[in-house]
Amino acid sequence: MTSPSPLDFDKRGGLVTAIAQDHRTGEILMVAYMNEEAFEKTLELGEVVYWSTSRNELWHKGESSGNVQVLKEFRVDCDGDAVLMKVDQKGRAACHTGKRSCFFNSLEGGKWRDVGVQVFDPATVYRK
Amino acid sequence: MTSPSPLDFDKRGGLVTAIAQDHRTGEILMVAYMNEEAFEKTLELGEVVYWSTSRNELWHKGESSGNVQVLKEFRVDCDGDAVLMKVDQKGRAACHTGKRSCFFNSLEGGKWRDVGVQVFDPATVYRK
Repeated sequence: MTSPSPLDFDKRGGLVTAIAQDHRTGEILMVAYMNEEAFEKTLELGEVVYWSTSRNELWHKGESSGNVQVLKEFRVDCDGDAVLMKVDQKGRAACHTGKRSCFFNSLEGGKWRDVGVQVFDPATVYRK
Repeated sequence: MTSPSPLDFDKRGGLVTAIAQDHRTGEILMVAYMNEEAFEKTLELGEVVYWSTSRNELWHKGESSGNVQVLKEFRVDCDGDAVLMKVDQKGRAACHTGKRSCFFNSLEGGKWRDVGVQVFDPATVYRK
């Protein structure tokens, strides 16, 4: 990095919120977290690497399923604690449920409805 | 609410990540937080109310500047700890800097560049 970074990993205990957005359609695919190591790894690979807060380890998204997120654009917000990544989502699905986006629960007229687009069957993709 | 809520406020200590997206252009405007009270207030008003983690209080976005976010669509992600709101951003700017989006820092060729669209002068809008 050759200019001062707007990223502030200290503000929220080492993590920033990380949003992935489809670079073509603008659809929000998912939200997770990044620490500084995940950020550097993302730039190095050109593919998104998150920090898994449940497993406490680096999470190279799509490493096992092949559904990686190729980084197209990297943005940081005004106070440095959130990043927005425009990505090319391989496999056309970001969610572990096999849906295109993780945001498939929609509140409509006081009721929750699943508006997700099913791309793959997770039982097939994640089999070992 | 007449059906089981996918929201999980307990997962991350009472707060969920809250993303605001322009309902027309798909541009991500800002990211903040919501607690259960902010969520209920948002539905009640039809305008976005966050929980300010710096001031520890409800934050009815745009209440002082008039730049409210009219709620058009409300989504929750697969694990219930993040919400996506499609909004009509009044005043055409979400950021306290007067820019349209808070995500104006862009990493381009190893350098950070301000790609923000300046909509208003914050000194004018926030004067008391």
